[in-house]
Amino acid sequence: MRKPGAAVRVLVLSGPNLDRLGKREPHIYGFVTLAEIHAGLEAVAAERGAEVVCRQSAHEGDLIGWIGAAQEEGFSGVLLNAGSLTHTSIGLLDAVRLAGVPVVEIHISQPEAREPFRRRSYVSRACFAKVTGFGALSYELGLVGMLRHLAQSGTA
Amino acid sequence: MRKPGAAVRVLVLSGPNLDRLGKREPHIYGFVTLAEIHAGLEAVAAERGAEVVCRQSAHEGDLIGWIGAAQEEGFSGVLLNAGSLTHTSIGLLDAVRLAGVPVVEIHISQPEAREPFRRRSYVSRACFAKVTGFGALSYELGLVGMLRHLAQSGTA
Amino acid sequence: MRKPGAAVRVLVLSGPNLDRLGKREPHIYGFVTLAEIHAGLEAVAAERGAEVVCRQSAHEGDLIGWIGAAQEEGFSGVLLNAGSLTHTSIGLLDAVRLAGVPVVEIHISQPEAREPFRRRSYVSRACFAKVTGFGALSYELGLVGMLRHLAQSGTA
Amino acid sequence: MRKPGAAVRVLVLSGPNLDRLGKREPHIYGFVTLAEIHAGLEAVAAERGAEVVCRQSAHEGDLIGWIGAAQEEGFSGVLLNAGSLTHTSIGLLDAVRLAGVPVVEIHISQPEAREPFRRRSYVSRACFAKVTGFGALSYELGLVGMLRHLAQSGTA
Amino acid sequence: MRKPGAAVRVLVLSGPNLDRLGKREPHIYGFVTLAEIHAGLEAVAAERGAEVVCRQSAHEGDLIGWIGAAQEEGFSGVLLNAGSLTHTSIGLLDAVRLAGVPVVEIHISQPEAREPFRRRSYVSRACFAKVTGFGALSYELGLVGMLRHLAQSGTA
Amino acid sequence: MRKPGAAVRVLVLSGPNLDRLGKREPHIYGFVTLAEIHAGLEAVAAERGAEVVCRQSAHEGDLIGWIGAAQEEGFSGVLLNAGSLTHTSIGLLDAVRLAGVPVVEIHISQPEAREPFRRRSYVSRACFAKVTGFGALSYELGLVGMLRHLAQSGTA
Amino acid sequence: MRKPGAAVRVLVLSGPNLDRLGKREPHIYGFVTLAEIHAGLEAVAAERGAEVVCRQSAHEGDLIGWIGAAQEEGFSGVLLNAGSLTHTSIGLLDAVRLAGVPVVEIHISQPEAREPFRRRSYVSRACFAKVTGFGALSYELGLVGMLRHLAQSGTA
Amino acid sequence: MRKPGAAVRVLVLSGPNLDRLGKREPHIYGFVTLAEIHAGLEAVAAERGAEVVCRQSAHEGDLIGWIGAAQEEGFSGVLLNAGSLTHTSIGLLDAVRLAGVPVVEIHISQPEAREPFRRRSYVSRACFAKVTGFGALSYELGLVGMLRHLAQSGTA
Amino acid sequence: MRKPGAAVRVLVLSGPNLDRLGKREPHIYGFVTLAEIHAGLEAVAAERGAEVVCRQSAHEGDLIGWIGAAQEEGFSGVLLNAGSLTHTSIGLLDAVRLAGVPVVEIHISQPEAREPFRRRSYVSRACFAKVTGFGALSYELGLVGMLRHLAQSGTA
Amino acid sequence: MRKPGAAVRVLVLSGPNLDRLGKREPHIYGFVTLAEIHAGLEAVAAERGAEVVCRQSAHEGDLIGWIGAAQEEGFSGVLLNAGSLTHTSIGLLDAVRLAGVPVVEIHISQPEAREPFRRRSYVSRACFAKVTGFGALSYELGLVGMLRHLAQSGTA
Amino acid sequence: MRKPGAAVRVLVLSGPNLDRLGKREPHIYGFVTLAEIHAGLEAVAAERGAEVVCRQSAHEGDLIGWIGAAQEEGFSGVLLNAGSLTHTSIGLLDAVRLAGVPVVEIHISQPEAREPFRRRSYVSRACFAKVTGFGALSYELGLVGMLRHLAQSGTA
Amino acid sequence: MRKPGAAVRVLVLSGPNLDRLGKREPHIYGFVTLAEIHAGLEAVAAERGAEVVCRQSAHEGDLIGWIGAAQEEGFSGVLLNAGSLTHTSIGLLDAVRLAGVPVVEIHISQPEAREPFRRRSYVSRACFAKVTGFGALSYELGLVGMLRHLAQSGTA
Repeated sequence: MRKPGAAVRVLVLSGPNLDRLGKREPHIYGFVTLAEIHAGLEAVAAERGAEVVCRQSAHEGDLIGWIGAAQEEGFSGVLLNAGSLTHTSIGLLDAVRLAGVPVVEIHISQPEAREPFRRRSYVSRACFAKVTGFGALSYELGLVGMLRHLAQSGTA
Repeated sequence: MRKPGAAVRVLVLSGPNLDRLGKREPHIYGFVTLAEIHAGLEAVAAERGAEVVCRQSAHEGDLIGWIGAAQEEGFSGVLLNAGSLTHTSIGLLDAVRLAGVPVVEIHISQPEAREPFRRRSYVSRACFAKVTGFGALSYELGLVGMLRHLAQSGTA
Repeated sequence: MRKPGAAVRVLVLSGPNLDRLGKREPHIYGFVTLAEIHAGLEAVAAERGAEVVCRQSAHEGDLIGWIGAAQEEGFSGVLLNAGSLTHTSIGLLDAVRLAGVPVVEIHISQPEAREPFRRRSYVSRACFAKVTGFGALSYELGLVGMLRHLAQSGTA
Repeated sequence: MRKPGAAVRVLVLSGPNLDRLGKREPHIYGFVTLAEIHAGLEAVAAERGAEVVCRQSAHEGDLIGWIGAAQEEGFSGVLLNAGSLTHTSIGLLDAVRLAGVPVVEIHISQPEAREPFRRRSYVSRACFAKVTGFGALSYELGLVGMLRHLAQSGTA
Repeated sequence: MRKPGAAVRVLVLSGPNLDRLGKREPHIYGFVTLAEIHAGLEAVAAERGAEVVCRQSAHEGDLIGWIGAAQEEGFSGVLLNAGSLTHTSIGLLDAVRLAGVPVVEIHISQPEAREPFRRRSYVSRACFAKVTGFGALSYELGLVGMLRHLAQSGTA
Repeated sequence: MRKPGAAVRVLVLSGPNLDRLGKREPHIYGFVTLAEIHAGLEAVAAERGAEVVCRQSAHEGDLIGWIGAAQEEGFSGVLLNAGSLTHTSIGLLDAVRLAGVPVVEIHISQPEAREPFRRRSYVSRACFAKVTGFGALSYELGLVGMLRHLAQSGTA
Repeated sequence: MRKPGAAVRVLVLSGPNLDRLGKREPHIYGFVTLAEIHAGLEAVAAERGAEVVCRQSAHEGDLIGWIGAAQEEGFSGVLLNAGSLTHTSIGLLDAVRLAGVPVVEIHISQPEAREPFRRRSYVSRACFAKVTGFGALSYELGLVGMLRHLAQSGTA
Repeated sequence: MRKPGAAVRVLVLSGPNLDRLGKREPHIYGFVTLAEIHAGLEAVAAERGAEVVCRQSAHEGDLIGWIGAAQEEGFSGVLLNAGSLTHTSIGLLDAVRLAGVPVVEIHISQPEAREPFRRRSYVSRACFAKVTGFGALSYELGLVGMLRHLAQSGTA
Repeated sequence: MRKPGAAVRVLVLSGPNLDRLGKREPHIYGFVTLAEIHAGLEAVAAERGAEVVCRQSAHEGDLIGWIGAAQEEGFSGVLLNAGSLTHTSIGLLDAVRLAGVPVVEIHISQPEAREPFRRRSYVSRACFAKVTGFGALSYELGLVGMLRHLAQSGTA
Repeated sequence: MRKPGAAVRVLVLSGPNLDRLGKREPHIYGFVTLAEIHAGLEAVAAERGAEVVCRQSAHEGDLIGWIGAAQEEGFSGVLLNAGSLTHTSIGLLDAVRLAGVPVVEIHISQPEAREPFRRRSYVSRACFAKVTGFGALSYELGLVGMLRHLAQSGTA
Repeated sequence: MRKPGAAVRVLVLSGPNLDRLGKREPHIYGFVTLAEIHAGLEAVAAERGAEVVCRQSAHEGDLIGWIGAAQEEGFSGVLLNAGSLTHTSIGLLDAVRLAGVPVVEIHISQPEAREPFRRRSYVSRACFAKVTGFGALSYELGLVGMLRHLAQSGTA
Repeated sequence: MRKPGAAVRVLVLSGPNLDRLGKREPHIYGFVTLAEIHAGLEAVAAERGAEVVCRQSAHEGDLIGWIGAAQEEGFSGVLLNAGSLTHTSIGLLDAVRLAGVPVVEIHISQPEAREPFRRRSYVSRACFAKVTGFGALSYELGLVGMLRHLAQSGTA
């Protein structure tokens, strides 16, 4: 739970294979690494008097655990790029529903423009919003939207 | 085609029933009317030295025609909230593919959190990016993303 | 919105190809033309101190627009024979949901006794009632049911 | 077979659980009991010089038997609210096809607005007409439609 | 209805996005514009003592209306390139069935060699013949076939 | 259980609507009534020193009960024409599996040549053999096959 | 409705073929007969100051009728082993929804470990709990759970 | 075409792998070879003053050719055991439809009791009757049924 | 490979049952035999300084072999009426892909207007064009289109 | 492997998100925490001279590992509440099959009464029994059933 | 059956279009011809004191016949590259099941990485092993595996 | 990246439950343990001047991480037996696509001969080759194939 007067804190989570960003297939995923994305988000947050904490894991269990603990750790919202788990993980869907804080779904690419099995997203059913296809900018727009959303709903 | 030195122009299109925004079921769609969204986008564009032109129609044929003519009318990109046509119109998919300018898909609500038939989006296969679920803010974030995208690709 | 003391007004809408009624394939659709159906409905309404306004269009956008404006135009209910759009139009479903007035689904024939693709009706999910298969009489029974329904719910 | 000069007789059949009408979940099914519906239909028939006989059973076999014997028992038509059997009984479909008299499908509620498995109706493929969603009034409108249909076709 | 001695007249209809032919993606659709196709068809018809009238619209309702009126306008047959509506429009299927004159389905490309959703064609169920994949020549072969068909059946 | 020296006894069961045989739609089902079929089977059995007992019911529960008790009633085999229950009854499948005596599936018509939903037969998974499409003769051939089968397996 | 001070009464219902328990295929269903199960349940209930009434039928209509009348007959809950009707009966689902008392689904075997068509259970959507696979013990555990549930919710 | 006074001739065709009968997996297919089946059919035919000609091939094309020529070769009917082609060959379906003589489908085993893909039979849609599961006896019963059918329809 | 100066040669292939054309079911397939179609194509080719070679087989293997050898035999293109193999043969699809020369799909009837299983065509995915439904004329129009296509692409 | 004379030991496993029990959405999952459930199970086991060991993890790999090692760790059975992994994990199914000890499936809620994707359970195909919907009591009933089962089969 | 002391003999079968290997689309299938593959297999077999016999046919019937006769011709195993028949032939599946000798499935390419319809393999259900994607080497690895398998099982 | 002159190194990965090999269900999986397989592969590699490193985990995240790091760790290729994750993990598919080194799919058993849900393999779409069903030998043949592939492509 956020303490009065403290900066709004947003948790940014990335899933399997996203640690390879900028290292493989740049024609698809671009040249920006995940570390650079994280640095960019910190800057954007700082400009707005907020904070972000960024984590990545290939383990569904890690992501579920982080979402489950987010509220207790004092985060007001979560940006979630679940990568390939987007399409198969019911556990993440449950975690988002139980999170107690709003979650925005993020994707670097436009999954629906790829293989048919990428058109199903379980987490979309519980995330309140979604930004996809803008490359690294998807994260940034999602963060701006989240901060605006929190401000409007009086949570931030 | 945009003339050198002219402001970047973005076309904003909204489909069936979106003229009812703010007038019906505000618990779902909010209290903001489409006219207010349009005014907001004009302000955002102006801040960034760009221009928007906003149109709405319940006719698939109108939307196809406007997308088909966008490039010739001097627009550098299109924001498209196809409403219910999102899920059934192959003609809009073809129009986006033939548009010659980038298109971003926009939704007020999070369609995938609603009925199963709203999980299929034809236009998603051709739009390069997508913003959904932020309410009226979805349009604004999409516009910011579009302008950033155009600037990066040297089109704007 | 209906003014106090004014007659109850019901809007009757017919979709694609229904202007061909009575002119083609009479063994299926009968010999009655749409104009004759409209005249009959006016008589039935007049007997009951009500009014009907009847319109036809092959354009989904027209039907959506008319339903969207029905309440503001002072109609208390809508009879909708969406023809072939019944089976594919999510936009009409949305329009019925947003209409603000009750809608009854009407069909001349019994669509479910025909090809499998006529067994799915989107508008059925939002219309509160349905009359099919009685030929031109389907409209009349639907109108009587609508007027009784409005009287019972105190809207008329 | 009806004797010359005798009143037109219509058989009204209701299937599983319909004996609970008015006793459970009135917010869905209303407060009218099946006995009251039957009484209302008798009044409507009497006004028009016709007769109705009303039966209810939770047994598919009973309904099939009654439909099979309807013509021999002198009925000119059948109103059939098959309840949940609507969606699964091929035997009722066969019975309607073999009935020798016209059958109208009736529902209190609007089944297609409920669970997906209620969107399939076998009997719809053989019933010549259908009235749903008007509550108890569905039966009455179906009866009026049946009597008009019989009069037009010279059967009544 | 054609008057005795008058030239056979064929109506040529093209649907959504076909006005972009020759202007976008020439590697797929070739360099010929729709206007040039229309001119070519007029020449082919003239050589054979016939006439063509050519129209294009992105509106399903326009195409349905034109097909519905074709016989009354004196056309003996229709060439129909419904574009993307081919795959979704039941209304066009109904219109072709009610047309009273034979209809040939035309496509510039070979839709079945493209995305899976282009393998379903509603109008194929009512058109008596089909020519696809020959580019602009598809129209011409379809016209020749139509004229031969009309001559054989004594309609022309 | 059959007593030593006693005639082989076969139970012949017919399901919903089969009591209408010969009375409705003779162009499909022929002019032979179920009573005549039963008489014919008794003659065929008598010629071969066997006995048949024939029953009909529109109630799934009756058929399940009769199959369940067949062995205890001293029958060596069952001929089962389940009619429309063929396609939906898992209970009959279970009953055939538990019967303890061999069961042959019988149909008057060729169900697979009719509607798609008649192509699925649950009881086919447990019946050891099947005869369809020969009209009333289907029963007779099934009986001959059953008696030959029982003789070969030493049960009769 | 249960009278104050009276013992809690639970209705135990078993469907098609369950009267064969212990008589056929003991390697699957065990050696215990339904009568022995009923006796065991009576003992378990008696130990806890409750009562059970046990019934079996192969008729869907009987089961629907018993569930429909359970509350009026003074039962506080129902144990339902619908056997093969589990997978196909929408009527039982409706009956459970209308029952007015809690219902627990019971199975001797583990249906989901068998054929695919046994993985769908309609009644599971309305039963509040389920015990399967423990053989005859499934009934007993279900009864204990039901009594505990009634005690906790203050109904017993 | 059969000459007046000549014996009725029936063509018996067997498809892929049926030449292995009696040589492999006798627990499934029994110990009877195809040659023995053919000899048995000749005897059955001779008793009834008819003739059979028996052929086997693993080539779909051979079977199609033989069916296509059957009428011209003077056969009055065909018994067809298409083996595995039963489930995939549309060509055999077309051949049966075009045959000009009645065709009975035969199987040694009960295909529907095996893998799911054996439950679909294309030829069942055009064969007028079917006998399966009686082992070698399936052919004999099919022949008897065919001869009775031909006698009744006056063809033999 | 065609020698310089030699006439363009086109191979015309017809599949299962097409040798029955004009002999059976003329109300569907017309009265023209395959031999007459072949003669007509030879005349059309001769008028244009080209040659055709026509073959028919019910064997998928023959058709695959002929397509595989077409280029080496000096053919510049293939007309393929695969008949019923159209809908199931992946081998023909592979053969068309490997052919090295363009292939046009031909059908006498309009398969998509028939049974649902005739709506899937494997070869359509590799044939560059298609003509269906014009009866024998389908072949001729396909040949004209092929020759025009070869002339345009400089192959002929 | 359990040593002679030692207490029966049962392993209790809970999957993703179950550590949130009693902390989120109590109207769905109740107010009992997982720790309290574990304590309750220990008491129930102790009363019966048995022992339980309870573990929870959001990692599929942990659950698979624990099941795989259960027998070697001396457990006689496993209670498994796989949470969301129930519906997607084939690895857990394999682990249960390889476990060497019996496994009972447990759920707090009634998954089949929720979203359609919760109606499929992979582990149900290998677990010998299942208890769902009784809230925390599901674990306790499952434990009692497991101990009874082990006692009957002589394993405990 | 192999004679004692004789070399182990393996039959190598290739299906439709595989005679085109090395002649068409070398970027997909490589430059090696089928004759060269056969020669390579002979060398590999000779090194190990075994023999191979290699055959190719586009006829499903030939492949079925060769597999059916393999054991009698003295082969101890079969390598089967069924080409496109892999995905549709139930006859080959039956033949493999009846073969009496083990069969290994071989593919040059990786079919599952191609079109969706190449992901279904009927023969995979009966072949005991499979090697795909190594180009010509797939055959060689399959042969080595087969010889090792035969040696281990004491068949060679 | 491999250093010049260094031995080729191949990474061998095994997924969930494979650590139970040789310990459970030997009739299915054989008696060989994973440790013995690893030892065998080391010997095979050593004979060919190559090296293998072998790892196993039940965690999808571990496997993804190992594949992602393989190239940087100096491996030239990967053998992947993903076990049950084969059928559900899109994350492994992505990892294989991003790996930068070739990957071969391995299975001990023949998954397609088992349950239907084992017929879908995501990783097959990105692995260049596959060996299944040879038991422990599958790994060895896959390794030989990999080394040959690397030698041919000049990577090793």
